[in-house]
Amino acid sequence: MAGKTVRIRRAGASGSGRRARPVMLAVAGDSAAGKSTISAGIVAALGPDRCAHLSTDDYLRHDRVERRALPVTPLHPDTHHIPILEQHLRLLAGGEAVLKPVYDHRSGRLTRPELVEPREFVIVDGLLPLHTTLARACFDVTVFLDPAEDIRRHWKLRRDTTTRGYTPDQVLAELAAREADAVAFVRPQRGRADIVVRFAPIPGRPGAPLSAEILLRATIPQPDLAGVLTHEVSQVMHLRLARDVDGRPVDSLHVHGYVPPEDGAAAVKAMWEAFGDPDSGVPEFFGRIGPDEYSAPLAITQILLLHHLLEGAR
Amino acid sequence: MAGKTVRIRRAGASGSGRRARPVMLAVAGDSAAGKSTISAGIVAALGPDRCAHLSTDDYLRHDRVERRALPVTPLHPDTHHIPILEQHLRLLAGGEAVLKPVYDHRSGRLTRPELVEPREFVIVDGLLPLHTTLARACFDVTVFLDPAEDIRRHWKLRRDTTTRGYTPDQVLAELAAREADAVAFVRPQRGRADIVVRFAPIPGRPGAPLSAEILLRATIPQPDLAGVLTHEVSQVMHLRLARDVDGRPVDSLHVHGYVPPEDGAAAVKAMWEAFGDPDSGVPEFFGRIGPDEYSAPLAITQILLLHHLLEGAR
Repeated sequence: MAGKTVRIRRAGASGSGRRARPVMLAVAGDSAAGKSTISAGIVAALGPDRCAHLSTDDYLRHDRVERRALPVTPLHPDTHHIPILEQHLRLLAGGEAVLKPVYDHRSGRLTRPELVEPREFVIVDGLLPLHTTLARACFDVTVFLDPAEDIRRHWKLRRDTTTRGYTPDQVLAELAAREADAVAFVRPQRGRADIVVRFAPIPGRPGAPLSAEILLRATIPQPDLAGVLTHEVSQVMHLRLARDVDGRPVDSLHVHGYVPPEDGAAAVKAMWEAFGDPDSGVPEFFGRIGPDEYSAPLAITQILLLHHLLEGAR
Repeated sequence: MAGKTVRIRRAGASGSGRRARPVMLAVAGDSAAGKSTISAGIVAALGPDRCAHLSTDDYLRHDRVERRALPVTPLHPDTHHIPILEQHLRLLAGGEAVLKPVYDHRSGRLTRPELVEPREFVIVDGLLPLHTTLARACFDVTVFLDPAEDIRRHWKLRRDTTTRGYTPDQVLAELAAREADAVAFVRPQRGRADIVVRFAPIPGRPGAPLSAEILLRATIPQPDLAGVLTHEVSQVMHLRLARDVDGRPVDSLHVHGYVPPEDGAAAVKAMWEAFGDPDSGVPEFFGRIGPDEYSAPLAITQILLLHHLLEGAR
């Protein structure tokens, strides 16, 4: 049944009384790269009661007013409590609760902290979860979201002017001001992720739903896609052997967004049958961008990440 | 020179690059038992830059408004994040910074957390620092403040109606409401402290400055007072072999508050020469209760606690 959360027990964790190590996923990327959209679908699929979900934005040292006096942007690690983030990730990895700081994006204020109890899965998104070695060492799977820059700017304008109370001019000025810190600190995380997801339009098809290119690096065991990539789905997705930016061989999964919806749905179904829970349908949150926006490439990305979480929990 | 902070380096800590374990002091006691007054003098004497000073009140789970709906008072451990307090004490003991929650007593609200960096000394006061084994295990020295109950009620009325915005009736109602939890959770900490300090009037001398009875338990090495307790100070203080409430032998140092000020000052000076820093005068904050209130028994208590901190740092 669609929408049913995915049931799985951590092997060895049940009934032993021992605190199990959670499976930990990092979703890194620049502002408005799609982190919350991806993560929220995965949390909804697993069930919020089984996930601790936090953002590295909560570890900002300054509120919005204080930041105005700073020479750096919130993309700079110095504006974050990075050692505390590392500490909290380490504690969560050890099955301990933490009292997590809270940054309220609406008000721009730091508010009272929240207790984050250990759960089976810990999902951390944010600007800088992969910035330091100690933080990276806590994760089982790391993802970097790398949408085409004009797409990201469009997403950021839309979000910050609607839910965060900024004017378009303020957002554009902020994007310009942040560029240097984005280059120095956010984008280098791309090279440290196990999976890189790039949403972009295909050249020559402006206005069509976005496609995704998903780099699957050999830094973790990646799923064997051979059984899924049959002739039936070949118009929707295919795997290419490519060279990573550093020259290393890497698998690159292309998922086309411009195909007819029924073809996209068939590919999503094939992925789910191979890597999801065969006893339930595709989670209804997968692929959902907004109340009436759907993306098959997003759903396929989420199935891949969910697969890694479930594998890590075995 | 009076007011100079006490200089001491932690043996083995300087220049080694190794994080030194801080010396940790707990000052437990019921509301308005004098915890802040005692601690603030010690922090001022050591120098605030060398002390991390925190209160277990910061680990309250609820703000003042939320507490109104609770069946228990803030003296109940369930109203505190005890596991997080234990975690933070453990981290501080290991020389790690923590992001400490903040409870604002004026507004009754939980506000943005504060970074507490590791320092040479960690001083923790509050209602429940000695409630659990894990918390107690982090401290080098533990103190319980046990003033005569009518004195404490007087202190609580005075403070809560001036700096915390309550009416006298509210404070009296709160005292009554808290009694059961005080008996169940706060007062049992008396038995777990290395030092118990009781400020009380001497019978037959109402209105005179309070005297102090300081129990020095054998749970830690206590200073040898023989050299100080000479004939000159015998009108101010004397040591008695007594039985603790559980029947065990214990040293009980009596410090009289009703003596002439010059006799009190001589006793404080003798204590400082024996257990303080011979190169500097008695810290000017020691014995200060308010802008124009002084207590020699308080100063002597603070010298004893400072001595333990300095010894622990050797």
